[in-house]
Amino acid sequence: MPERVHIIGTGLIGTSLAIALTQHTVEVTLADASPTTAALAADLSGGEVADGLAADIVVVATPPDVTAAVVAAALARHPEATVTDVASVKGVVRAELAAAGAPGLGRYVGGHPMAGRERSGAISARGDLFEGRPWVVAAVADTEPDAVALVKGMAEAVGSVVTLLDPGEHDEAVAAVSHVPQIAASLVAARLADLPDTAVALAGQGVRDVTRIAASDPQLWTQILAGNAPAVARVLRAIATDLSGLITALEALGPEPTGAVVAPGARAALAGAIQAGNAGHARIPGKHGAAPTAYAKVVVLISDRPGQLGRLFQDVADAGINLEELVLEHSLGAQFGLLELSVLPGVEAELRTELTRKGWRLHA
Amino acid sequence: MPERVHIIGTGLIGTSLAIALTQHTVEVTLADASPTTAALAADLSGGEVADGLAADIVVVATPPDVTAAVVAAALARHPEATVTDVASVKGVVRAELAAAGAPGLGRYVGGHPMAGRERSGAISARGDLFEGRPWVVAAVADTEPDAVALVKGMAEAVGSVVTLLDPGEHDEAVAAVSHVPQIAASLVAARLADLPDTAVALAGQGVRDVTRIAASDPQLWTQILAGNAPAVARVLRAIATDLSGLITALEALGPEPTGAVVAPGARAALAGAIQAGNAGHARIPGKHGAAPTAYAKVVVLISDRPGQLGRLFQDVADAGINLEELVLEHSLGAQFGLLELSVLPGVEAELRTELTRKGWRLHA
Repeated sequence: MPERVHIIGTGLIGTSLAIALTQHTVEVTLADASPTTAALAADLSGGEVADGLAADIVVVATPPDVTAAVVAAALARHPEATVTDVASVKGVVRAELAAAGAPGLGRYVGGHPMAGRERSGAISARGDLFEGRPWVVAAVADTEPDAVALVKGMAEAVGSVVTLLDPGEHDEAVAAVSHVPQIAASLVAARLADLPDTAVALAGQGVRDVTRIAASDPQLWTQILAGNAPAVARVLRAIATDLSGLITALEALGPEPTGAVVAPGARAALAGAIQAGNAGHARIPGKHGAAPTAYAKVVVLISDRPGQLGRLFQDVADAGINLEELVLEHSLGAQFGLLELSVLPGVEAELRTELTRKGWRLHA
Repeated sequence: MPERVHIIGTGLIGTSLAIALTQHTVEVTLADASPTTAALAADLSGGEVADGLAADIVVVATPPDVTAAVVAAALARHPEATVTDVASVKGVVRAELAAAGAPGLGRYVGGHPMAGRERSGAISARGDLFEGRPWVVAAVADTEPDAVALVKGMAEAVGSVVTLLDPGEHDEAVAAVSHVPQIAASLVAARLADLPDTAVALAGQGVRDVTRIAASDPQLWTQILAGNAPAVARVLRAIATDLSGLITALEALGPEPTGAVVAPGARAALAGAIQAGNAGHARIPGKHGAAPTAYAKVVVLISDRPGQLGRLFQDVADAGINLEELVLEHSLGAQFGLLELSVLPGVEAELRTELTRKGWRLHA
């Protein structure tokens, strides 16, 4: 746990970190290319706009395209301090530092707090931004162990769950779990643009889920994808190969009547793709990083009147049952919704009995 | 509204329809290739296993690969009745009927109730399966108007929202809003299969949403995709072209240092793909089929103890505020969750004030 932290760059992440650290009585100093922004961040966080030359940790929280240059300058200006950053891609920052021959690289520890908001800037900062979120600490063989421990301590102090990965592992991981899903959502959503209204009116929960993140900010995502181009391209090439196989299979099936026994290999290719998706889906951890659990689902019809949800969750609580996940489904044209409650399989029957007894209509 | 309905095929859809119709005092007769299954459906629904020769409507609810043959037989056997089906692809059924020269085609009205469950079979049937769900009625120029009206009346009687589309429009629509999203989810999920545990542990809400439907049944989806092969292939080819452009752009960017000004066209290609996704995403209707609304989001920290959700929703109801959408987010390793409440923008400030006053911790 550091005593003094100097934060360079007072946008959403830098200012949120400043707020969280001052709440833990860490002495925070701030710097930003814009004096006005730095002053706002100081007001919001209780930190001080200053050089921070006595800092234990310097956190570079600038936009990604200047991260490496600012880290190099910080290593030179703060010769005793640990320097870390918050850029969402780690290999490219380290490569640029190495190429520039930056001194004191053993004191640099890559970092990636996986927290964010739809809004940006100091004004949107929150002291609890990092709570319960992963914070990747990306060290390499010659990174000083004390520096790693200090960054880890800081991340945990603000509520993050720290994962140690090397920079390459980190970039491969976020390509698959973050960058490629974003691209898939955008490509599927783009196909909806030219559909007639009657067609998009058929959109159900499936396409809504798949395309939810397609509403993301193009400028931010261009920086993120460009910074991790090789790893993202690698995953996308694998997907393009799978996709090409599916298109070939569908073309082999062609406009055949139902039930025609043609191209059995083509049907196997379709089934294989869905099965491979099953296997990958099963890898995603359940709530709180626990092992994946197949939750039992109970769907309840909820009218649109205020108070229905409160009464329902009170009834669930009275039954002593904890909810693992919940999703409120849209209902096209109907004045009610379907609320899907996920619970541990062992309490499903009890939940159904209790809710039915209390007069709720269960749907599935 | 029909007075007598004969249902052929007593799986999930057929039996659910039987239950719903008998609740509306429609006289229901049932048939199935399996006498045991038909008897079970009769017990569950109050319908009768019989020929149903006096039926106004015959509903063919068999598996998709025998739908056209059973429809043709029903048109011959019930020379006065309207015949409809429930297959999830419409063009191929009609093409096969036309190719076979089935008589009485003017009395055939294609149908697609867009309702389902994760479980199948009569035993999983529910009378409210169709409530609030789209039911596509797919007629063509020489379909008898009375037949269309009868099927529409039946679908509305069981709570569905009817959309009239021609078979080709229907198949193009479900390719884009259902079949292609399924494939995208499966392909993205498949890429997670070989990741190390530390990498999948970084999975956030984005990839969870994109891949949720990747858990779907391979056998069912093989039938669905094979039955709509040309339309699905058409959308997938467009996506493959977009994907190929993105891969080229990412490869042009290469492993360049951050901030390097290379391949500006490549960055524009990335931004363009995300922007196209924004445009498509904006087409998806909001709750209840209304025009899309940009809801305001309020995120509340919820502890894992039973009763928290009940208390929260009671507080929301006491404030007289209605929730439009809600999502419970996972929090890696933390013993609490983040509940995202979506409300109309005009009541966001009031909701924030009320929840803060009641002691809730708002996150974003």
